[in-house]
Amino acid sequence: MPTGRYNQKHQSKKMKEPQDYLQINLLGADEQRRRLSRIYDGMDHYDIDCALIRDNANIYYLTGRVFRGYIYIDRRGPGPFYFVRQPSTLRADRMDTMFHIRKPEEIRGHLDKIGVRSSANIALELDNISSSAATRLAGAFGMTAPSLNISPILRQARAVKTPAEQDKLIRSGQKHTYVYSRIPHLYQEGMRDIDLQIEIERLSRQEGCLGLFRIAGDEMELFMGNVLTGHNADEPSPYDFAMGGLGLDPSLPVGADGTLIKPGWPVMVDVNGNYTGYMTDMTRMYYIGELSDEARRACSLSAEICRTLASMMLPGTKACDLYTKATEMAAEAGMTEYFMGHRSHAGFVGHGVGIEVNELPVIAPRSRDIISSGNVIALEPKFVIPGIGPVGIENTYIVGSDGGRCITTAPEEPVSMD
Amino acid sequence: MPTGRYNQKHQSKKMKEPQDYLQINLLGADEQRRRLSRIYDGMDHYDIDCALIRDNANIYYLTGRVFRGYIYIDRRGPGPFYFVRQPSTLRADRMDTMFHIRKPEEIRGHLDKIGVRSSANIALELDNISSSAATRLAGAFGMTAPSLNISPILRQARAVKTPAEQDKLIRSGQKHTYVYSRIPHLYQEGMRDIDLQIEIERLSRQEGCLGLFRIAGDEMELFMGNVLTGHNADEPSPYDFAMGGLGLDPSLPVGADGTLIKPGWPVMVDVNGNYTGYMTDMTRMYYIGELSDEARRACSLSAEICRTLASMMLPGTKACDLYTKATEMAAEAGMTEYFMGHRSHAGFVGHGVGIEVNELPVIAPRSRDIISSGNVIALEPKFVIPGIGPVGIENTYIVGSDGGRCITTAPEEPVSMD
Repeated sequence: MPTGRYNQKHQSKKMKEPQDYLQINLLGADEQRRRLSRIYDGMDHYDIDCALIRDNANIYYLTGRVFRGYIYIDRRGPGPFYFVRQPSTLRADRMDTMFHIRKPEEIRGHLDKIGVRSSANIALELDNISSSAATRLAGAFGMTAPSLNISPILRQARAVKTPAEQDKLIRSGQKHTYVYSRIPHLYQEGMRDIDLQIEIERLSRQEGCLGLFRIAGDEMELFMGNVLTGHNADEPSPYDFAMGGLGLDPSLPVGADGTLIKPGWPVMVDVNGNYTGYMTDMTRMYYIGELSDEARRACSLSAEICRTLASMMLPGTKACDLYTKATEMAAEAGMTEYFMGHRSHAGFVGHGVGIEVNELPVIAPRSRDIISSGNVIALEPKFVIPGIGPVGIENTYIVGSDGGRCITTAPEEPVSMD
Repeated sequence: MPTGRYNQKHQSKKMKEPQDYLQINLLGADEQRRRLSRIYDGMDHYDIDCALIRDNANIYYLTGRVFRGYIYIDRRGPGPFYFVRQPSTLRADRMDTMFHIRKPEEIRGHLDKIGVRSSANIALELDNISSSAATRLAGAFGMTAPSLNISPILRQARAVKTPAEQDKLIRSGQKHTYVYSRIPHLYQEGMRDIDLQIEIERLSRQEGCLGLFRIAGDEMELFMGNVLTGHNADEPSPYDFAMGGLGLDPSLPVGADGTLIKPGWPVMVDVNGNYTGYMTDMTRMYYIGELSDEARRACSLSAEICRTLASMMLPGTKACDLYTKATEMAAEAGMTEYFMGHRSHAGFVGHGVGIEVNELPVIAPRSRDIISSGNVIALEPKFVIPGIGPVGIENTYIVGSDGGRCITTAPEEPVSMD
């Protein structure tokens, strides 16, 4: 540990008072309206009048903070209205838009009291909240069962990032890039994959990484990303990843498994870029000793696919066409067998990224997504080559009128850690 | 970083072959039967014939590993039957009990083919899976909507740990205790709460901590636990915690917020004890300079409440009686105002812990849980005292015939980091 890192002075010993209150909407009225209007467009399209939002990622999208509670939105009425269980310290600028509650059954009464007639058919986040929670919320609005699903509309809205969101992603990309630039300094002889990963995790945290890796859905579990080398990359995981890894324990069977980093073996680093609440996704290759020409060629191909797809990412492009192009380039190089995995193949070559790591659009063969300006997309055309290991890079791009602009700007060539 | 830590030798450069296959049931037949029989008892009680399990924590409970797929259980039929989406490498001892599938709609056909007549009314994990997922699974079994909920039965079954589970918890407690013993060596002058936390996270990971902090339900989010000092402990969080903390960012508003560690200020460490797939929960206090008598007295009171409650944890005891005893002891010491928080009070003094951090039983005023032999319970009678900060300890206990046996054995007194 570098001495002198912790150089703050002990000044007053007196303890600060905790804050009296916290603003519930950190976005400001304009930015919130911008996000809501995208959601209202979707509600309009599907003829949904009102919705109750509870998922942490969606609450964060609508307010810039996470709290425990609910947001009631109505595309034709006033609002949004906040129903807060915790923390008790939240305040809204307009007192008549926020209510502290103990349970969701109180929401309807508050709405009635302020003259907001909630629709008989309120949409819920059916992809995000448990079946029991959905049934309870439906009951709290007098319905026998949940019916309308607001989740796909929120997912679509969140796929196009506002300038303020793009700014957070750019700042995450900068931090992420800096951490990757330091990786060769973290390596020490004799390290296993997990040893290097732990040092990268620590440096990431020191640079402000929040650690939490938000994943939509309730199936996929990851800690802070993966460092893979050797045969371990070709161990299929429970998830739809090109790279697998046995992990350290069958309770979390993914990623580093304690494989020793050996000369000439590519080491693939794909760790959490959540520095701002919005996360970038970036993968780079590192090595000790000499890297084979075959590994270098595959890495160049991966970077070339990224560049080609980024230049094709024009608003209006079909996401599936990007996927097709990637597979064609892999096939031309005779690499089909290793593309997006070897013993187990991931079904996509890219994905939206933002508050969560698996957002829209999805760059996959049967994707119906159309690329839009403001999409933020991670491309990860990777290979697993038997006897060589995991090879390839991943970048995050912001889609503009002239294609994808890369915001994960570490050099794309394999980096020596010697 | 200590030199010589990474001392493995580069031997053969040849890459291992990945493993041909992995056993799906790592528990062995007897242990799995032991766990299933607890679940079948619950199904019997609620007249549920069969259930489909998908939640990662429950899959881990039933097999000792996480995979992406489903487990079909029938209290009167053969089985369990495994339906695996990923990884492709899983194998069962008896081939006719495991099927690789691409989607859950294939499950019923496989069951039909092997002569297992799935009930018209299959129970699902309605507290654990999304409303959309539950609807889809119900449809895959010919039902128009999900109806029976297996989640509470699994929660009850998992509340009583088998000897094999207790062994994993004991081993996590040992690692957890070792890491806490090293905390004074991690402190450097000028550190903020987050700086110390990062060093504890790193050491935890080096000692085998899996990092992942499993939490039941979809509301609570935490990274690797919390280090709190000063006024920050009295900042209410979105969750039902005695201690809060603003966190580093409003997207994860809990825990360390960058407060400088100052002489005389208690530093409360409550970080992830997941070393084996089963996690222990432990909190200890650290400080620099001199700690006030008031802080020491409150810490002693916390330890005394723990000891008293542990001795009361006899099978058959009402969980709510433990809570009452804790509040009485706090009141006798004139500490009611600060007990389980100050500006925000947690509604419990303890909770079950195991695969997830919030298991049964819950030690709370309205809890109907009854303490059973084999329960594993974390007790955390903590205080937040204005001008002093967070004070108290937390231990994890295994309930036996003579009360709770502590498995988080770090010394309970506040520890100087000077």
